[in-house]
Amino acid sequence: MINTPTLFIETKLETYAYRRFGGGAAPPLICLQHFTGTLDNWDPAVTDPLARDREVILFENAGVGRSTGEVPTTIRGMAAHLLAFAEALGLTRVDLLGFSLGGMVAQEAALIRPSLVRRMLLVGTAPEGGEDIMHLEKPELRRILEDPNLTGLEILVKLFFAPSESSQAAGQAFANRLAARTDDREPLSGPKVAQAQMAAFRAWEQVEGERFGALGRITQPCLVVNGFLDSMIPVRNSYMLAEHLPNAMLLAYPDAGHGSLFQFHESFVRQATVFLG
Amino acid sequence: MINTPTLFIETKLETYAYRRFGGGAAPPLICLQHFTGTLDNWDPAVTDPLARDREVILFENAGVGRSTGEVPTTIRGMAAHLLAFAEALGLTRVDLLGFSLGGMVAQEAALIRPSLVRRMLLVGTAPEGGEDIMHLEKPELRRILEDPNLTGLEILVKLFFAPSESSQAAGQAFANRLAARTDDREPLSGPKVAQAQMAAFRAWEQVEGERFGALGRITQPCLVVNGFLDSMIPVRNSYMLAEHLPNAMLLAYPDAGHGSLFQFHESFVRQATVFLG
Repeated sequence: MINTPTLFIETKLETYAYRRFGGGAAPPLICLQHFTGTLDNWDPAVTDPLARDREVILFENAGVGRSTGEVPTTIRGMAAHLLAFAEALGLTRVDLLGFSLGGMVAQEAALIRPSLVRRMLLVGTAPEGGEDIMHLEKPELRRILEDPNLTGLEILVKLFFAPSESSQAAGQAFANRLAARTDDREPLSGPKVAQAQMAAFRAWEQVEGERFGALGRITQPCLVVNGFLDSMIPVRNSYMLAEHLPNAMLLAYPDAGHGSLFQFHESFVRQATVFLG
Repeated sequence: MINTPTLFIETKLETYAYRRFGGGAAPPLICLQHFTGTLDNWDPAVTDPLARDREVILFENAGVGRSTGEVPTTIRGMAAHLLAFAEALGLTRVDLLGFSLGGMVAQEAALIRPSLVRRMLLVGTAPEGGEDIMHLEKPELRRILEDPNLTGLEILVKLFFAPSESSQAAGQAFANRLAARTDDREPLSGPKVAQAQMAAFRAWEQVEGERFGALGRITQPCLVVNGFLDSMIPVRNSYMLAEHLPNAMLLAYPDAGHGSLFQFHESFVRQATVFLG
Protein backbone atom coordinates (compact mmCIF):
# COMPACT_ATOMS: atom_id res chain seq x y z
CA MET A 1 0.00 0.00 0.00
CA ILE A 2 1.15 3.46 -0.78
CA ASN A 3 1.22 4.42 2.93
CA THR A 4 2.62 1.19 4.35
CA PRO A 5 5.44 2.16 6.71
CA THR A 6 8.92 0.86 6.07
CA LEU A 7 10.07 -1.66 8.66
CA PHE A 8 13.58 -2.84 9.49
CA ILE A 9 14.79 -6.19 10.68
CA GLU A 10 18.22 -7.03 12.00
CA THR A 11 19.53 -10.41 10.89
CA LYS A 12 22.72 -12.39 11.15
CA LEU A 13 23.87 -10.73 7.91
CA GLU A 14 22.45 -7.20 7.61
CA THR A 15 19.55 -5.01 8.63
CA TYR A 16 16.98 -4.99 5.86
CA ALA A 17 14.28 -2.48 5.01
CA TYR A 18 10.96 -4.03 4.06
CA ARG A 19 7.24 -3.42 3.93
CA ARG A 20 4.44 -5.87 4.63
CA PHE A 21 0.72 -5.53 4.13
CA GLY A 22 -2.41 -7.55 3.40
CA GLY A 23 -3.15 -10.96 4.79
CA GLY A 24 -4.97 -14.22 4.22
CA ALA A 25 -4.61 -17.95 4.26
CA ALA A 26 -2.16 -18.21 1.35
CA PRO A 27 1.60 -18.19 1.98
CA PRO A 28 3.17 -14.74 2.01
CA LEU A 29 4.45 -13.39 -1.28
CA ILE A 30 7.94 -11.86 -1.13
CA CYS A 31 8.61 -9.37 -3.92
CA LEU A 32 12.16 -9.06 -5.29
CA GLN A 33 13.02 -5.91 -7.14
CA HIS A 34 14.71 -4.96 -10.43
CA PHE A 35 18.04 -3.30 -11.20
CA THR A 36 18.53 -0.21 -8.99
CA GLY A 37 14.89 -0.40 -7.92
CA THR A 38 13.89 0.12 -4.29
CA LEU A 39 10.77 -0.59 -2.25
CA ASP A 40 9.32 2.53 -3.85
CA ASN A 41 9.42 0.95 -7.30
CA TRP A 42 6.67 -1.57 -6.58
CA ASP A 43 3.49 -0.64 -8.38
CA PRO A 44 0.53 -0.60 -5.96
CA ALA A 45 -1.71 -1.61 -8.88
CA VAL A 46 0.11 -4.96 -8.76
CA THR A 47 1.00 -5.45 -5.12
CA ASP A 48 -2.19 -4.16 -3.47
CA PRO A 49 -4.68 -6.51 -5.15
CA LEU A 50 -2.31 -9.44 -4.59
CA ALA A 51 -2.43 -8.59 -0.87
CA ARG A 52 -6.16 -9.37 -0.70
CA ASP A 53 -5.58 -13.10 -0.26
CA ARG A 54 -2.12 -13.13 1.28
CA GLU A 55 0.51 -11.06 2.98
CA VAL A 56 2.72 -9.22 0.51
CA ILE A 57 6.26 -8.50 1.67
CA LEU A 58 8.46 -6.09 -0.30
CA PHE A 59 12.12 -6.86 0.38
CA GLU A 60 15.04 -4.46 0.02
CA ASN A 61 18.22 -6.42 -0.64
CA ALA A 62 21.56 -5.54 1.03
CA GLY A 63 23.08 -2.20 0.08
CA VAL A 64 19.91 -0.92 -1.59
CA GLY A 65 17.74 1.85 -0.11
CA ARG A 66 18.03 1.78 3.66
CA SER A 67 19.15 -1.84 3.88
CA THR A 68 22.66 -2.01 5.30
CA GLY A 69 25.70 -3.64 3.76
CA GLU A 70 27.14 -3.89 0.30
CA VAL A 71 25.29 -4.91 -2.84
CA PRO A 72 26.60 -8.38 -3.72
CA THR A 73 28.18 -8.78 -7.14
CA THR A 74 26.56 -12.18 -7.63
CA ILE A 75 22.98 -13.40 -7.71
CA ARG A 76 23.96 -16.05 -5.21
CA GLY A 77 25.08 -13.37 -2.79
CA MET A 78 21.75 -11.58 -3.16
CA ALA A 79 19.86 -14.83 -2.60
CA ALA A 80 21.77 -15.35 0.66
CA HIS A 81 20.39 -12.04 1.91
CA LEU A 82 16.86 -13.04 0.94
CA LEU A 83 17.24 -16.29 2.85
CA ALA A 84 18.61 -14.50 5.93
CA PHE A 85 15.66 -12.10 5.73
CA ALA A 86 13.06 -14.88 5.46
CA GLU A 87 14.68 -16.76 8.33
CA ALA A 88 14.72 -13.68 10.55
CA LEU A 89 11.00 -13.16 9.89
CA GLY A 90 10.38 -16.81 10.77
CA LEU A 91 8.99 -17.61 7.32
CA THR A 92 9.27 -21.26 6.33
CA ARG A 93 7.11 -21.35 3.18
CA VAL A 94 6.68 -18.45 0.80
CA ASP A 95 5.81 -17.56 -2.77
CA LEU A 96 8.19 -15.30 -4.68
CA LEU A 97 7.52 -12.57 -7.20
CA GLY A 98 10.86 -11.87 -8.83
CA PHE A 99 10.99 -9.11 -11.40
CA SER A 100 14.05 -8.83 -13.66
CA LEU A 101 17.09 -9.00 -11.33
CA GLY A 102 14.67 -10.17 -8.65
CA GLY A 103 13.64 -13.13 -10.82
CA MET A 104 17.23 -14.31 -10.89
CA VAL A 105 17.48 -14.00 -7.10
CA ALA A 106 14.25 -16.00 -6.82
CA GLN A 107 15.64 -18.83 -8.98
CA GLU A 108 18.83 -18.95 -6.96
CA ALA A 109 16.96 -18.95 -3.65
CA ALA A 110 14.79 -21.85 -4.86
CA LEU A 111 17.94 -23.78 -5.73
CA ILE A 112 19.65 -23.09 -2.40
CA ARG A 113 16.59 -23.66 -0.20
CA PRO A 114 13.91 -25.50 -2.17
CA SER A 115 11.76 -26.15 0.89
CA LEU A 116 11.23 -22.42 1.47
CA VAL A 117 9.73 -21.70 -1.93
CA ARG A 118 6.26 -22.92 -2.87
CA ARG A 119 5.59 -21.10 -6.17
CA MET A 120 7.32 -18.39 -8.19
CA LEU A 121 6.25 -15.60 -10.49
CA LEU A 122 9.27 -14.86 -12.70
CA VAL A 123 8.71 -11.67 -14.66
CA GLY A 124 10.98 -10.02 -17.24
CA THR A 125 13.87 -12.17 -16.21
CA ALA A 126 16.37 -14.71 -17.52
CA PRO A 127 17.89 -18.05 -16.63
CA GLU A 128 21.55 -18.32 -15.74
CA GLY A 129 23.29 -18.55 -19.10
CA GLY A 130 20.69 -16.31 -20.71
CA GLU A 131 21.39 -13.84 -23.51
CA ASP A 132 21.57 -10.09 -23.97
CA ILE A 133 20.79 -9.41 -20.32
CA MET A 134 20.73 -5.74 -19.38
CA HIS A 135 23.23 -4.45 -21.90
CA LEU A 136 22.65 -0.79 -21.24
CA GLU A 137 25.34 0.05 -23.77
CA LYS A 138 23.03 -1.04 -26.61
CA PRO A 139 22.12 1.94 -28.82
CA GLU A 140 18.37 1.71 -28.14
CA LEU A 141 18.95 1.78 -24.38
CA ARG A 142 21.80 4.32 -24.41
CA ARG A 143 19.62 6.70 -26.39
CA ILE A 144 17.18 6.71 -23.48
CA LEU A 145 19.71 6.71 -20.66
CA GLU A 146 21.73 9.57 -22.15
CA ASP A 147 18.77 11.73 -23.18
CA PRO A 148 19.34 15.04 -21.32
CA ASN A 149 15.61 15.83 -21.48
CA LEU A 150 14.57 12.78 -19.47
CA THR A 151 14.78 12.48 -15.71
CA GLY A 152 13.97 9.89 -13.07
CA LEU A 153 10.66 8.23 -13.73
CA GLU A 154 10.58 9.45 -17.34
CA ILE A 155 13.62 7.30 -18.05
CA LEU A 156 11.94 4.35 -16.37
CA VAL A 157 8.84 4.78 -18.54
CA LYS A 158 10.96 4.77 -21.70
CA LEU A 159 13.00 1.76 -20.55
CA PHE A 160 10.16 -0.39 -19.19
CA PHE A 161 7.44 0.28 -21.76
CA ALA A 162 7.18 -0.19 -25.50
CA PRO A 163 7.48 2.82 -27.85
CA SER A 164 3.78 2.74 -28.83
CA GLU A 165 1.45 5.46 -27.60
CA SER A 166 -0.64 2.92 -25.69
CA SER A 167 2.34 1.45 -23.87
CA GLN A 168 3.85 4.85 -23.07
CA ALA A 169 0.48 5.99 -21.68
CA ALA A 170 0.42 2.90 -19.47
CA GLY A 171 3.96 3.81 -18.43
CA GLN A 172 2.93 7.31 -17.46
CA ALA A 173 0.08 5.92 -15.36
CA PHE A 174 2.59 3.58 -13.69
CA ALA A 175 4.91 6.50 -12.96
CA ASN A 176 2.05 8.46 -11.45
CA ARG A 177 1.18 5.55 -9.19
CA LEU A 178 4.78 5.31 -7.98
CA ALA A 179 4.96 9.05 -7.38
CA ALA A 180 1.87 8.93 -5.17
CA ARG A 181 4.02 7.80 -2.24
CA THR A 182 5.50 11.01 -0.89
CA ASP A 183 6.65 10.13 2.64
CA ASP A 184 8.94 7.50 4.08
CA ARG A 185 10.63 6.92 0.75
CA GLU A 186 13.85 5.03 0.16
CA PRO A 187 16.95 6.86 -1.06
CA LEU A 188 17.54 6.44 -4.80
CA SER A 189 20.19 3.96 -5.86
CA GLY A 190 23.49 5.46 -6.93
CA PRO A 191 26.26 4.27 -9.26
CA LYS A 192 27.67 1.96 -6.59
CA VAL A 193 24.47 -0.08 -6.49
CA ALA A 194 24.26 -0.09 -10.30
CA GLN A 195 27.85 -1.26 -10.73
CA ALA A 196 27.56 -4.16 -8.33
CA GLN A 197 24.23 -5.32 -9.79
CA MET A 198 25.62 -5.00 -13.30
CA ALA A 199 28.51 -7.25 -12.31
CA ALA A 200 25.95 -9.79 -11.14
CA PHE A 201 24.19 -9.62 -14.52
CA ARG A 202 27.47 -10.20 -16.36
CA ALA A 203 28.25 -13.23 -14.20
CA TRP A 204 24.68 -14.55 -14.68
CA GLU A 205 25.15 -14.51 -18.46
CA GLN A 206 28.01 -16.97 -18.22
CA VAL A 207 27.34 -20.61 -18.98
CA GLU A 208 28.97 -23.00 -16.54
CA GLY A 209 28.54 -26.71 -17.04
CA GLU A 210 25.40 -27.85 -18.82
CA ARG A 211 23.52 -24.80 -20.05
CA PHE A 212 20.24 -24.40 -18.13
CA GLY A 213 21.02 -27.63 -16.28
CA ALA A 214 20.21 -26.11 -12.88
CA LEU A 215 16.68 -25.22 -13.99
CA GLY A 216 15.77 -28.90 -13.98
CA ARG A 217 16.14 -28.86 -10.19
CA ILE A 218 13.58 -26.07 -9.75
CA THR A 219 10.47 -28.21 -9.55
CA GLN A 220 8.18 -25.57 -8.06
CA PRO A 221 5.31 -24.40 -10.26
CA CYS A 222 6.44 -21.19 -11.96
CA LEU A 223 4.62 -18.58 -13.99
CA VAL A 224 7.05 -16.92 -16.42
CA VAL A 225 5.87 -13.56 -17.74
CA ASN A 226 7.26 -10.99 -20.15
CA GLY A 227 6.45 -8.45 -22.84
CA PHE A 228 7.37 -9.34 -26.42
CA LEU A 229 9.13 -5.98 -26.80
CA ASP A 230 11.38 -6.18 -23.74
CA SER A 231 14.63 -4.50 -24.78
CA MET A 232 16.38 -4.96 -21.43
CA ILE A 233 15.97 -8.73 -21.05
CA PRO A 234 14.58 -9.93 -24.39
CA VAL A 235 11.64 -12.30 -24.36
CA ARG A 236 13.69 -15.21 -25.68
CA ASN A 237 15.15 -15.43 -22.18
CA SER A 238 11.63 -16.13 -20.93
CA TYR A 239 11.27 -18.83 -23.58
CA MET A 240 14.51 -20.48 -22.47
CA LEU A 241 13.54 -20.18 -18.83
CA ALA A 242 10.04 -21.62 -19.23
CA GLU A 243 11.18 -24.36 -21.60
CA HIS A 244 13.81 -25.64 -19.19
CA LEU A 245 11.94 -25.28 -15.92
CA PRO A 246 10.07 -28.56 -15.48
CA ASN A 247 6.82 -26.92 -14.38
CA ALA A 248 6.52 -23.43 -15.81
CA MET A 249 3.67 -21.79 -17.65
CA LEU A 250 4.64 -18.94 -19.96
CA LEU A 251 2.64 -15.79 -20.51
CA ALA A 252 3.79 -13.06 -22.89
CA TYR A 253 2.06 -9.77 -23.58
CA PRO A 254 1.89 -7.81 -26.85
CA ASP A 255 2.76 -4.11 -27.11
CA ALA A 256 4.71 -4.40 -23.86
CA GLY A 257 8.31 -4.16 -22.76
CA HIS A 258 10.20 -5.05 -19.59
CA GLY A 259 7.42 -3.71 -17.36
CA SER A 260 4.62 -5.86 -18.79
CA LEU A 261 3.26 -6.62 -15.31
CA PHE A 262 2.76 -2.90 -14.64
CA GLN A 263 1.25 -2.22 -18.06
CA PHE A 264 -1.18 -5.15 -17.91
CA HIS A 265 -1.60 -5.01 -14.16
CA GLU A 266 -5.21 -6.17 -14.19
CA SER A 267 -4.44 -9.18 -16.36
CA PHE A 268 -1.24 -9.91 -14.47
CA VAL A 269 -2.97 -9.80 -11.09
CA ARG A 270 -5.74 -12.08 -12.37
CA GLN A 271 -3.20 -14.55 -13.76
CA ALA A 272 -1.05 -14.41 -10.65
CA THR A 273 -4.06 -14.85 -8.37
CA VAL A 274 -5.18 -17.98 -10.22
CA PHE A 275 -1.63 -19.30 -10.35
CA LEU A 276 -0.96 -18.72 -6.65
CA GLY A 277 -4.46 -19.81 -5.61
CA MET B 1 -22.26 -31.38 -26.50
CA ILE B 2 -21.74 -35.07 -26.87
CA ASN B 3 -25.31 -35.55 -28.17
CA THR B 4 -25.57 -32.47 -30.34
CA PRO B 5 -26.96 -33.61 -33.71
CA THR B 6 -24.96 -33.00 -36.83
CA LEU B 7 -26.53 -30.43 -39.14
CA PHE B 8 -25.91 -29.76 -42.81
CA ILE B 9 -25.99 -26.55 -44.75
CA GLU B 10 -25.90 -26.15 -48.50
CA THR B 11 -23.85 -23.20 -49.70
CA LYS B 12 -22.65 -21.78 -52.99
CA LEU B 13 -19.56 -23.96 -52.67
CA GLU B 14 -20.38 -27.21 -50.84
CA THR B 15 -22.71 -28.76 -48.28
CA TYR B 16 -21.02 -28.66 -44.91
CA ALA B 17 -21.59 -30.77 -41.81
CA TYR B 18 -21.56 -28.81 -38.55
CA ARG B 19 -22.82 -28.80 -35.01
CA ARG B 20 -23.98 -25.83 -32.96
CA PHE B 21 -24.85 -25.59 -29.29
CA GLY B 22 -24.89 -23.19 -26.38
CA GLY B 23 -25.87 -19.56 -26.57
CA GLY B 24 -25.40 -16.13 -25.06
CA ALA B 25 -24.67 -12.54 -25.84
CA ALA B 26 -21.09 -13.04 -27.08
CA PRO B 27 -20.40 -13.63 -30.79
CA PRO B 28 -20.49 -17.26 -31.85
CA LEU B 29 -17.24 -19.20 -31.69
CA ILE B 30 -16.46 -21.26 -34.79
CA CYS B 31 -14.08 -24.15 -34.12
CA LEU B 32 -11.65 -25.21 -36.86
CA GLN B 33 -10.19 -28.67 -36.62
CA HIS B 34 -6.76 -30.27 -36.91
CA PHE B 35 -5.18 -32.54 -39.53
CA THR B 36 -7.58 -35.39 -40.41
CA GLY B 37 -9.79 -34.46 -37.44
CA THR B 38 -13.56 -34.36 -37.78
CA LEU B 39 -16.38 -32.89 -35.71
CA ASP B 40 -15.94 -35.90 -33.43
CA ASN B 41 -12.45 -34.78 -32.47
CA TRP B 42 -13.63 -31.77 -30.48
CA ASP B 43 -13.19 -32.36 -26.76
CA PRO B 44 -16.45 -31.60 -24.91
CA ALA B 45 -14.34 -30.58 -21.89
CA VAL B 46 -13.25 -27.59 -23.99
CA THR B 47 -16.22 -26.83 -26.20
CA ASP B 48 -19.08 -27.36 -23.70
CA PRO B 49 -17.95 -24.84 -21.06
CA LEU B 50 -17.17 -22.31 -23.79
CA ALA B 51 -20.80 -22.67 -24.93
CA ARG B 52 -22.09 -21.26 -21.63
CA ASP B 53 -21.66 -17.65 -22.77
CA ARG B 54 -21.91 -18.02 -26.54
CA GLU B 55 -22.93 -20.31 -29.31
CA VAL B 56 -20.20 -22.78 -30.26
CA ILE B 57 -20.19 -23.94 -33.87
CA LEU B 58 -18.05 -26.90 -34.91
CA PHE B 59 -17.28 -26.69 -38.63
CA GLU B 60 -16.36 -29.56 -40.94
CA ASN B 61 -14.34 -28.26 -43.86
CA ALA B 62 -14.89 -29.49 -47.44
CA GLY B 63 -14.09 -33.12 -48.13
CA VAL B 64 -13.83 -34.05 -44.45
CA GLY B 65 -16.42 -36.20 -42.66
CA ARG B 66 -19.79 -35.74 -44.29
CA SER B 67 -18.99 -32.36 -45.83
CA THR B 68 -19.09 -32.63 -49.60
CA GLY B 69 -16.35 -31.72 -52.05
CA GLU B 70 -12.60 -32.15 -52.16
CA VAL B 71 -10.15 -31.20 -49.42
CA PRO B 72 -8.29 -28.13 -50.72
CA THR B 73 -4.54 -28.41 -50.99
CA THR B 74 -4.03 -24.87 -49.71
CA ILE B 75 -4.98 -23.08 -46.51
CA ARG B 76 -6.49 -20.34 -48.61
CA GLY B 77 -8.80 -22.85 -50.22
CA MET B 78 -9.92 -24.10 -46.81
CA ALA B 79 -10.52 -20.53 -45.64
CA ALA B 80 -12.80 -19.96 -48.65
CA HIS B 81 -14.99 -22.83 -47.43
CA LEU B 82 -15.13 -21.36 -43.93
CA LEU B 83 -16.20 -18.01 -45.35
CA ALA B 84 -18.89 -19.63 -47.52
CA PHE B 85 -20.13 -21.50 -44.46
CA ALA B 86 -20.27 -18.38 -42.27
CA GLU B 87 -22.05 -16.47 -45.01
CA ALA B 88 -24.62 -19.21 -45.51
CA LEU B 89 -25.38 -19.16 -41.78
CA GLY B 90 -25.76 -15.38 -41.93
CA LEU B 91 -22.91 -14.80 -39.49
CA THR B 92 -21.29 -11.38 -39.79
CA ARG B 93 -19.10 -11.31 -36.66
CA VAL B 94 -17.54 -14.39 -35.08
CA ASP B 95 -14.69 -15.52 -32.89
CA LEU B 96 -12.50 -18.36 -34.13
CA LEU B 97 -10.87 -21.23 -32.29
CA GLY B 98 -8.33 -22.67 -34.70
CA PHE B 99 -6.40 -25.72 -33.59
CA SER B 100 -3.32 -26.77 -35.58
CA LEU B 101 -4.41 -26.83 -39.25
CA GLY B 102 -7.51 -24.95 -38.11
CA GLY B 103 -5.35 -22.14 -36.71
CA MET B 104 -3.85 -21.61 -40.15
CA VAL B 105 -7.32 -21.49 -41.70
CA ALA B 106 -8.34 -18.96 -39.05
CA GLN B 107 -5.38 -16.69 -39.88
CA GLU B 108 -6.13 -16.85 -43.58
CA ALA B 109 -9.84 -16.14 -43.05
CA ALA B 110 -8.96 -13.10 -40.94
CA LEU B 111 -6.75 -11.84 -43.76
CA ILE B 112 -9.35 -12.40 -46.46
CA ARG B 113 -12.35 -11.06 -44.51
CA PRO B 114 -11.12 -9.06 -41.51
CA SER B 115 -14.57 -7.69 -40.71
CA LEU B 116 -15.93 -11.17 -39.99
CA VAL B 117 -13.41 -12.04 -37.28
CA ARG B 118 -13.52 -10.38 -33.87
CA ARG B 119 -10.99 -12.44 -31.85
CA MET B 120 -9.01 -15.62 -32.41
CA LEU B 121 -7.73 -18.46 -30.28
CA LEU B 122 -4.79 -19.95 -32.18
CA VAL B 123 -3.72 -23.21 -30.59
CA GLY B 124 -0.83 -25.52 -31.55
CA THR B 125 -0.45 -23.77 -34.86
CA ALA B 126 2.05 -21.87 -36.99
CA PRO B 127 2.32 -18.74 -39.10
CA GLU B 128 2.79 -19.00 -42.86
CA GLY B 129 6.53 -19.47 -43.27
CA GLY B 130 6.76 -21.41 -40.01
CA GLU B 131 9.14 -24.27 -39.34
CA ASP B 132 8.99 -28.03 -38.92
CA ILE B 133 5.23 -28.13 -39.44
CA MET B 134 3.71 -31.60 -39.31
CA HIS B 135 6.67 -33.58 -40.56
CA LEU B 136 5.25 -37.00 -39.84
CA GLU B 137 8.36 -38.56 -41.33
CA LYS B 138 10.39 -37.44 -38.29
CA PRO B 139 11.60 -40.46 -36.32
CA GLU B 140 9.75 -39.53 -33.11
CA LEU B 141 6.44 -39.27 -35.00
CA ARG B 142 7.02 -42.22 -37.33
CA ARG B 143 7.70 -44.40 -34.32
CA ILE B 144 4.17 -43.66 -33.11
CA LEU B 145 2.42 -43.76 -36.47
CA GLU B 146 4.00 -47.07 -37.47
CA ASP B 147 3.57 -48.80 -34.11
CA PRO B 148 1.49 -51.91 -34.91
CA ASN B 149 0.25 -52.08 -31.32
CA LEU B 150 -1.45 -48.67 -31.43
CA THR B 151 -4.80 -47.98 -33.01
CA GLY B 152 -7.09 -44.99 -33.54
CA LEU B 153 -7.32 -42.88 -30.43
CA GLU B 154 -4.22 -44.50 -28.91
CA ILE B 155 -2.17 -42.99 -31.71
CA LEU B 156 -3.78 -39.61 -31.11
CA VAL B 157 -2.92 -39.78 -27.41
CA LYS B 158 0.74 -40.49 -28.22
CA LEU B 159 0.89 -37.76 -30.86
CA PHE B 160 -0.97 -35.02 -29.00
CA PHE B 161 0.37 -35.52 -25.48
CA ALA B 162 3.82 -35.46 -23.92
CA PRO B 163 5.56 -38.71 -23.01
CA SER B 164 5.24 -38.16 -19.24
CA GLU B 165 2.84 -40.28 -17.22
CA SER B 166 0.79 -37.22 -16.28
CA SER B 167 0.38 -36.06 -19.86
CA GLN B 168 -0.43 -39.54 -21.15
CA ALA B 169 -3.06 -39.93 -18.42
CA ALA B 170 -4.60 -36.63 -19.50
CA GLY B 171 -4.50 -37.97 -23.06
CA GLN B 172 -6.35 -41.12 -22.05
CA ALA B 173 -9.02 -39.03 -20.34
CA PHE B 174 -9.31 -36.97 -23.52
CA ALA B 175 -9.70 -40.13 -25.61
CA ASN B 176 -12.41 -41.39 -23.26
CA ARG B 177 -14.30 -38.11 -23.62
CA LEU B 178 -14.15 -38.34 -27.41
CA ALA B 179 -15.29 -41.96 -27.36
CA ALA B 180 -18.37 -41.05 -25.32
CA ARG B 181 -20.13 -39.96 -28.49
CA THR B 182 -21.44 -43.19 -29.99
CA ASP B 183 -24.16 -42.10 -32.43
CA ASP B 184 -24.26 -39.74 -35.38
CA ARG B 185 -20.51 -39.86 -35.82
CA GLU B 186 -18.54 -38.62 -38.78
CA PRO B 187 -16.67 -41.10 -41.01
CA LEU B 188 -12.94 -41.24 -40.24
CA SER B 189 -10.61 -39.38 -42.59
CA GLY B 190 -8.75 -41.54 -45.07
CA PRO B 191 -5.46 -41.12 -46.95
CA LYS B 192 -7.04 -38.77 -49.48
CA VAL B 193 -7.88 -36.23 -46.79
CA ALA B 194 -4.44 -36.64 -45.23
CA GLN B 195 -2.60 -36.14 -48.52
CA ALA B 196 -4.44 -32.96 -49.46
CA GLN B 197 -4.04 -31.46 -45.99
CA MET B 198 -0.37 -32.42 -45.97
CA ALA B 199 0.09 -30.58 -49.26
CA ALA B 200 -1.44 -27.53 -47.60
CA PHE B 201 1.07 -27.80 -44.71
CA ARG B 202 3.98 -28.02 -47.16
CA ALA B 203 2.78 -24.93 -49.01
CA TRP B 204 2.22 -23.09 -45.69
CA GLU B 205 5.89 -23.65 -44.74
CA GLN B 206 7.06 -21.71 -47.78
CA VAL B 207 8.17 -18.13 -47.30
CA GLU B 208 6.88 -15.79 -49.96
CA GLY B 209 7.82 -12.14 -49.81
CA GLU B 210 8.58 -10.69 -46.39
CA ARG B 211 8.54 -13.51 -43.85
CA PHE B 212 5.60 -13.10 -41.46
CA GLY B 213 4.70 -9.86 -43.23
CA ALA B 214 1.02 -10.81 -43.54
CA LEU B 215 0.70 -11.21 -39.78
CA GLY B 216 1.02 -7.46 -39.35
CA ARG B 217 -2.37 -7.10 -41.06
CA ILE B 218 -4.13 -9.35 -38.53
CA THR B 219 -5.01 -6.71 -35.98
CA GLN B 220 -7.61 -8.73 -34.10
CA PRO B 221 -6.77 -9.65 -30.52
CA CYS B 222 -5.36 -13.19 -30.55
CA LEU B 223 -4.55 -15.68 -27.83
CA VAL B 224 -1.76 -18.00 -29.02
CA VAL B 225 -1.52 -21.25 -27.06
CA ASN B 226 0.74 -24.28 -27.18
CA GLY B 227 2.52 -26.94 -25.17
CA PHE B 228 6.29 -26.66 -24.82
CA LEU B 229 6.66 -30.27 -25.92
CA ASP B 230 4.63 -30.11 -29.14
CA SER B 231 6.42 -32.42 -31.58
CA MET B 232 3.99 -31.87 -34.47
CA ILE B 233 4.14 -28.07 -34.66
CA PRO B 234 6.96 -27.07 -32.30
CA VAL B 235 6.35 -24.23 -29.86
CA ARG B 236 8.77 -21.89 -31.63
CA ASN B 237 6.05 -21.50 -34.26
CA SER B 238 3.82 -20.09 -31.53
CA TYR B 239 6.62 -17.70 -30.55
CA MET B 240 6.97 -16.49 -34.15
CA LEU B 241 3.22 -16.19 -34.53
CA ALA B 242 2.65 -14.24 -31.33
CA GLU B 243 5.70 -12.02 -31.83
CA HIS B 244 4.59 -10.94 -35.28
CA LEU B 245 0.89 -10.58 -34.70
CA PRO B 246 0.38 -6.99 -33.50
CA ASN B 247 -2.03 -7.95 -30.71
CA ALA B 248 -1.40 -11.48 -29.49
CA MET B 249 -0.94 -12.82 -26.01
CA LEU B 250 1.03 -16.05 -25.73
CA LEU B 251 0.32 -18.85 -23.31
CA ALA B 252 2.46 -21.98 -23.19
CA TYR B 253 1.94 -25.00 -20.96
CA PRO B 254 4.56 -27.28 -19.42
CA ASP B 255 4.46 -31.07 -19.71
CA ALA B 256 2.17 -30.74 -22.72
CA GLY B 257 2.34 -31.44 -26.43
CA HIS B 258 0.21 -30.52 -29.42
CA GLY B 259 -3.03 -31.08 -27.51
CA SER B 260 -2.29 -28.68 -24.65
CA LEU B 261 -5.84 -27.30 -24.74
CA PHE B 262 -7.27 -30.77 -24.08
CA GLN B 263 -4.73 -31.58 -21.37
CA PHE B 264 -5.19 -28.30 -19.50
CA HIS B 265 -8.84 -27.92 -20.49
CA GLU B 266 -9.84 -26.17 -17.26
CA SER B 267 -7.07 -23.61 -17.53
CA PHE B 268 -7.59 -23.21 -21.26
CA VAL B 269 -11.32 -22.62 -20.87
CA ARG B 270 -10.68 -20.09 -18.11
CA GLN B 271 -8.11 -18.26 -20.24
CA ALA B 272 -10.29 -18.40 -23.34
CA THR B 273 -13.34 -17.18 -21.43
CA VAL B 274 -11.48 -14.14 -20.08
CA PHE B 275 -9.93 -13.47 -23.48
CA LEU B 276 -13.22 -13.70 -25.38
CA GLY B 277 -15.21 -11.95 -22.64
